[in-house]
Order: sequence, then structure tokens, then C-alpha cells
Amino acid sequence: MSIMHKEFTSILKKIRMDKPLVHHITNYVTANDCANVVLSLGGAPVMADDPIEVEEMVSIASSLVLNIGTINHNKIEAFIKAGKKANQLGIPVILDPVGVGATSLRSEAIKEILAEVKISVLRGNMSEIKNIYGVKSLTRGVDSSDDTMAGGREIAESLAKTLKCIIAITGKIDIVSDGRKTYYINHGHERLTKITGTGCMTTSLIGLCCGAKESYLYGAILGVVIMAASGEKAYNQLEDIGTYRVKLMDYISRFSIEEIGGGEKIHEAN
Amino acid sequence: MSIMHKEFTSILKKIRMDKPLVHHITNYVTANDCANVVLSLGGAPVMADDPIEVEEMVSIASSLVLNIGTINHNKIEAFIKAGKKANQLGIPVILDPVGVGATSLRSEAIKEILAEVKISVLRGNMSEIKNIYGVKSLTRGVDSSDDTMAGGREIAESLAKTLKCIIAITGKIDIVSDGRKTYYINHGHERLTKITGTGCMTTSLIGLCCGAKESYLYGAILGVVIMAASGEKAYNQLEDIGTYRVKLMDYISRFSIEEIGGGEKIHEAN
Amino acid sequence: MSIMHKEFTSILKKIRMDKPLVHHITNYVTANDCANVVLSLGGAPVMADDPIEVEEMVSIASSLVLNIGTINHNKIEAFIKAGKKANQLGIPVILDPVGVGATSLRSEAIKEILAEVKISVLRGNMSEIKNIYGVKSLTRGVDSSDDTMAGGREIAESLAKTLKCIIAITGKIDIVSDGRKTYYINHGHERLTKITGTGCMTTSLIGLCCGAKESYLYGAILGVVIMAASGEKAYNQLEDIGTYRVKLMDYISRFSIEEIGGGEKIHEAN
Repeated sequence: MSIMHKEFTSILKKIRMDKPLVHHITNYVTANDCANVVLSLGGAPVMADDPIEVEEMVSIASSLVLNIGTINHNKIEAFIKAGKKANQLGIPVILDPVGVGATSLRSEAIKEILAEVKISVLRGNMSEIKNIYGVKSLTRGVDSSDDTMAGGREIAESLAKTLKCIIAITGKIDIVSDGRKTYYINHGHERLTKITGTGCMTTSLIGLCCGAKESYLYGAILGVVIMAASGEKAYNQLEDIGTYRVKLMDYISRFSIEEIGGGEKIHEAN
Repeated sequence: MSIMHKEFTSILKKIRMDKPLVHHITNYVTANDCANVVLSLGGAPVMADDPIEVEEMVSIASSLVLNIGTINHNKIEAFIKAGKKANQLGIPVILDPVGVGATSLRSEAIKEILAEVKISVLRGNMSEIKNIYGVKSLTRGVDSSDDTMAGGREIAESLAKTLKCIIAITGKIDIVSDGRKTYYINHGHERLTKITGTGCMTTSLIGLCCGAKESYLYGAILGVVIMAASGEKAYNQLEDIGTYRVKLMDYISRFSIEEIGGGEKIHEAN
Repeated sequence: MSIMHKEFTSILKKIRMDKPLVHHITNYVTANDCANVVLSLGGAPVMADDPIEVEEMVSIASSLVLNIGTINHNKIEAFIKAGKKANQLGIPVILDPVGVGATSLRSEAIKEILAEVKISVLRGNMSEIKNIYGVKSLTRGVDSSDDTMAGGREIAESLAKTLKCIIAITGKIDIVSDGRKTYYINHGHERLTKITGTGCMTTSLIGLCCGAKESYLYGAILGVVIMAASGEKAYNQLEDIGTYRVKLMDYISRFSIEEIGGGEKIHEAN
């Protein structure tokens, strides 16, 4: 893990130095949490979603986070406009397909975004990623009950190649792949599933880490690792959800490379 | 209270087993808190309010929460569409008339919802419920300063009969009635009034409990009891509002039937 | 500081007695935090932004907070309608120009608001206030890197005279001026910059204090002081951001005149 440590350290240093502005077009349920994780680690979050201002806003940003929770028609226009502008300027775009598959509006939105915008990192849970995988590979059915790690690796690698982006699947074990290299992250705790927005926050953390403009692959891994390692450390079986949320934010804000020890819980698939 | 214990236990077990999806069309002020209470107790919250997707979303949900805070015209269309679809599918609809009476837009919205959608549970504070009661029973004036328990029971029972739904009035003493049976809940603490969203969260908890599809009356009572009993336990006179909010979430997330002891603080009106 | 103590005490007493309704037209990122600070100190927050209902809502309010975060076209219409109605009724209007200068939409919105609505208090950080100052005094360039205290005083006083309102510039040292008298507030802690929404919350606190209808100058100072003094007291170097947020809310909710001691950290510029 010595390489990972070097890359992670470099990204974290860059964040503290550059204070990357992370432009979010996101939902109103978890926007506050997303802003707080970005800010607590040294970044600068901004939320702006009127189609009229998103191109200007993303032009001064270091990365763009598109999150389709509480989606509506205005936001879809904003996603496309901001995404295209980010592409022109070489600003990384991180996509969170919240609830894709649940409604046609969300599925169509994702299809439109993927057709119009070059995505740097796509982060979702297994069900969301499988849904998109199914959409992109119509010749092959996707069994939504098949969420084994093995199936995850195959999907992550295949989708990464098709979409030419990093795929991050978060769950019991997180999987991050650029289509050639694939990593498993064994950090985390089940209690993270009892808090709303841990997925959205992870996407924002990836936005922050990619905003450091070092490596999108390592940026995606580090974003996932910060949430998973913090969620693991924050857990105390004597405490309940309210206190756990507070401690999760404590651990995220104090995250440093020391929190992952020798990196034993992060390994490359072979 | 042995009957109540049995009903409550059955609902709580069903929630843990079925993980009811609670579709919210709600305000952006308290959406995060509402999502967190539903999730912490074992349910699955989803917030979706574009009129284009609400019918599809509610179709996969176990219950529908309509909350008119931060209302606008698009949301009214969404309320009606989602509500009608829920009615077709036999999915319970829980209505929170936040601030009804303060503006014509809110009053008209409530009138339209009540005319177009069959509501399962209506939860509000005394002032909101009285406002609706006045609207529905124009022959009788409603004195907004009359918020005695006795007046509350009469209004709850009468409105429950008129609207053919459960009425939950939350306040110092909570009142829940289906028009025939009426219950008083003496749990709670005044400090709950110092936190925003405790009303909205109670409505979401009712949505969760009714999503168990056992009994809407007991579901409404249990939703009210979870908030009131947790707010009571969380209080510590040496602590202030920030800590109280955290502990409130702790107690909600760990709620079990043991928290209400022998049920001494819940009784049927006679 | 004996005068200040008397004024502050009078405002705090009035808040507890009158429970001022603070109507917010604000962003969805920090709305929950803003509602909670107002409520925890004894006020009543309401968020309503549909242009159709804002005039009615502000008519029953004690103050109006206009915050341009997550701005969109509907909100601009709401700002103007609500602001004009507040002016007619003598209700104080507090403006928070979040991110003005970042996009034309925000700059145009502020220009339109300032042209159409009489503002009582304008609160922003140095960069936002300088941007507005530049817009209003085109004959003079504004160096955005010049954020010394001295420059701040000049800008605050000049802008206060031009706009005929109170200017509150928050930062390491806060500056509040009505154009004739200028005050420095040395309370605060750098950690406040690591939490999202401390600016928005300060604006809401000013809204609450001005809603007491005692003095807008002292109301603005007190709003700034409550946040700064609470942020200072909440800091503990052994704790991290999650816990700090909770304690900040604890200190805000328990704020009393005793928290600022003899007022040594608040002084008038001479």
C-alpha cells in the first residue's frame, strides 16, 4: 500500500493548499451534510442549480458533482449545461445516480447525462450501478439480486470500459475500478446504512478529492476510503444513531492517512 | 394497555421485516431529519416531488407522506397526482398541513388535497387542525385560543368522522382519534417545541408505522408515541438544544416497546 | 459597554415575550440550521418562497430574511414581492448576498433587490460586501485581496450611507456600521469557517434580533455577537467538527448577556 499512501497524502495536501471549490447540483435532503463534509476537510462547497447560472459557477470550480436526488426538469437542464461546460474546461464531473431505475424520469436523466456529458467518476450502490449497466448492455440481463463481490467486479470493470470513467460501487465491500485496475475497500460499518446521505456524502468527498486534480482513480478511492474508515471508527455499540452521526462527522473532519493504518483493508483485485 | 403493546410490537416487527418505503413529498427545511428518523428505525425514506415521477415512485412505496411546508405550485400538482395513485393502490396517505391558514395558497392546497385524495391520517398541531376544522364546518366558528384538551377531543372526533380518516393532534397532550375511539398520549417534553421539524418528523414516523399495513389507527398512535416518548427520555435539564437534538435521534433510533413501560401515559378517552 | 448591555438585554427580553416570526426566503442547504437557531432562542421561523404566498406570509411576520443561496428565477420574484410588502408594513428586511459576484444571476438579483427594496441590514463576508460596494460605486475599484480591518470600516461606513442601511461584515473581526457609528466584534473562532451555514445563521439571528423591533443597529450587532460568542465558547481543541456543531447550537440556544462578560470584545471605532 505504499503507493496508495503516497497518492493519498498528495491529494490531501493539495486539498489543504488549493481549497478546491466543489460545485454541487444536488438534492435538498442531504445538501447540508454534503457541504459540511467538503468544508470540514478543507474544501469549499457551493450549491447552485439554476440552469442560468450553472455554467458560470462551474467555470470557477475545481470539480462538479451531479446528484439526481429530488430531481426535476430544471435540474436536468442544469446537469447537462454544467456538465458540458465542465468537459470543455477539463473539470472532473462526478455523477451520483440516486434511485436510478425507480422512475423513468431518473433513468432518462441518467441516459441523457451519459450521452451528453463525459463523466470522470460514477458512484452508486450495487442496485443503481447494475441498473445503469443493464441500460448500457441491453444484450445481457442484470439480476438485481446478484450483488456478490465477484459480480460487482465484473460489472465495475465492464462499465468503466464502456463509459470510459471510474466506477465506484459502495456497499459492504466497496469496489472502485477504472476498467483495468480494480480495488476493494474493506473499511466501513453496517451502521452507515442507518444514516441518510452517506452515499451522497461519499460522492461529494470523491468530488473534493478529484478536485485536487491529482488522479481521478485515486481520488475516487480516497473519497470512498474517507467515508468508510470514518464510519468504522465512529461506531461504538453502546451508542445510537444521533451520536453516531456526530462522531462520523468528527472522524471525517479529522481524517488523515494514519486512520487507515498500513492500508491492510484496501487491496487490488488480482 | 396490553392490546396496545401487542399492536405496537406487531407494527415494529413488520417495519424491521418489510423495511417500508416511505415516499415523501415534503419541504426542504426538515427533509433530512424526516429521512433520518425513518431510516434509523428500519424504514426506507425516499423524497421525490416532480409531478412527472411521483406516480411511479409512490407505486413502489408502502406509504405516502404529503407535507405542505415550503409549498409551491409544482408540489400541489405532485400532491394530487401521487395521492390519487396511492388511493388507487391502497397505499396509506399521511397529510401534514404545515402552516395552513397562514396563507391562501396553503389553505387552498389543503382544500384541494382533501377534495381529491382520500387521506388515512391527518397530523397537525391544534392551530392547524382547528383551521381545517373551521374550513370543513363553516357553520361553527373556531376559536384559535381554545386549545384545551376537551375542545381537542371534540374537534378530533368530529373531523375524523367528516374526513373519514385518523386525526392526530400533537401538543402538550397528543390526541389521536378515528372518530369512534380517541386516545390521549401524555408522553413528551416542552423542549421538543424548541427544535424545528418535530412535527414533520412525527408525520414521517406515522408514515413509517402505517407503511407496516397493520392498523392506521395504531400506526398513527405509535408514530406519535415514538416522538413523544423519545423527546421525554432525551431531556436533561443540564443540557442544551444541540445535545438534545442528538439525544432525541438516539432515542428515536433505539425505540422499543420497553420505552413506554406499562403504557401508563397512553389512555383511551372515556 | 453598559449601553450595549441594556440594549441587548432589552432585545433578548422582547424576543422571549413576542416570539418574533422570522419569514425566510432562503436556500435549501442551510434552511434547517437557520430555523433551528431562530427557534432555539425563542423566535418562530417560517420558510416560504412561492411568489404567490410570500406577501401574505410576510404580513404576519416580524422580520424578513432574504438569502440568495441556491437562487433561481422564482425566488427573485419572491424576494421583490416580499421585500416590497415588508417595506410597506415597516417590517425590517435583512439581506444575505450569498456568493454575489460568482455569477451574473446573483449579481443581477442583488442589484434588483437593492433597487426595489429598502434593506434594513445587509450581512455578508468581506468578499461579498466588497463586490456590492464595487457595484454601487463604479468610480472606485475594489481590491478583493484588501480585507484589512481598516478597509472594512471604510467600506462598511460608505456602503451604509449609500444604501441607507446597517452593514454587517463578518470575518475574523466582525464590523457593523450604520454609516455614522461603527463597531468591531472580536468574538469568534476560526473553526466557525469549517461549518457550513454560519453566515446564513448569523443573518437569521440578525433577523430575529431586528424582529424585536428595538433597534436595527443593536439588533445587527447582537445577531453577530450571538454567533461569534457561541462559536468561541463552543471551541475545544480536543474535539472535532461534528461535536463542535452540536456545541455551537448548545451555546446559541443558551445565549444570555452573561456570555459576553463585560463586553470587552465589542468596541466602537473611534
